[in-house]
Amino acid sequence: MLSDEDAVLEANAEFYAAFESGDIDRMADVWERSDRATVVHPGWPRIQGWAKVAGSIDAIFRGTGYIQFFLTDAHVEVIGATAVVTVDENILQASGAANAPENPGPLSEAKVAAVNVFVRDGDEWRMILHQGSPVNTELRD
Amino acid sequence: MLSDEDAVLEANAEFYAAFESGDIDRMADVWERSDRATVVHPGWPRIQGWAKVAGSIDAIFRGTGYIQFFLTDAHVEVIGATAVVTVDENILQASGAANAPENPGPLSEAKVAAVNVFVRDGDEWRMILHQGSPVNTELRD
Repeated sequence: MLSDEDAVLEANAEFYAAFESGDIDRMADVWERSDRATVVHPGWPRIQGWAKVAGSIDAIFRGTGYIQFFLTDAHVEVIGATAVVTVDENILQASGAANAPENPGPLSEAKVAAVNVFVRDGDEWRMILHQGSPVNTELRD
Repeated sequence: MLSDEDAVLEANAEFYAAFESGDIDRMADVWERSDRATVVHPGWPRIQGWAKVAGSIDAIFRGTGYIQFFLTDAHVEVIGATAVVTVDENILQASGAANAPENPGPLSEAKVAAVNVFVRDGDEWRMILHQGSPVNTELRD
């Protein structure tokens, strides 16, 4: 039996695995597919409601040739039926169409400070919010 | 008697009022002053623990001549003893030392997508997380 913290970290890891896979159905299983589902992609305005959230992630999938997340400094706070994960995303990515994986664009790096909020759903934890803030590494590191 | 949602919105409003006032003691009353207090200022890396959070806010206060928040599209989700507020910050600000308010720098505008997490503390709601993501208005509006 996993502790709440470990179960939340497992759900959090699955979010990033789904993102790396580019599989929108796998991503859908991570989320609470409700009106309160909310995402802020780095640099984007806030998007609310599952259909719009899914559409935005699908658009990113279609425009991303390759993406890998190296997660550091994860912190989990479980408060009753809610869990807040803060984590640093160290991202290696290439643009270019995901349907042409043999020809991704040049690789680039980015650092993003993320907060992910989950709610308990029976034995599962479902994401209701993902927000990624670009970290200005030139000025702050 | 305020509803939970209204009480949370009141705490959220007080966070921004404290920010505009530049009064760190007033700001301290908004927060849960604990190890889990976490802030991500726009473009900054994540900062965790109340002492560091307070230090970062105080540094911003000292470098800010003037700041005003116009909040739009606030959304509150109360889940048991936790509350998640998402809100757009439309910011009008001037750099320059706060101790020379007669001589602020030029005004600039910014748009930030924020998430604020509060926990219930008796009759109060205390902030445990504030994260602001810069919105790239040139590309996305």
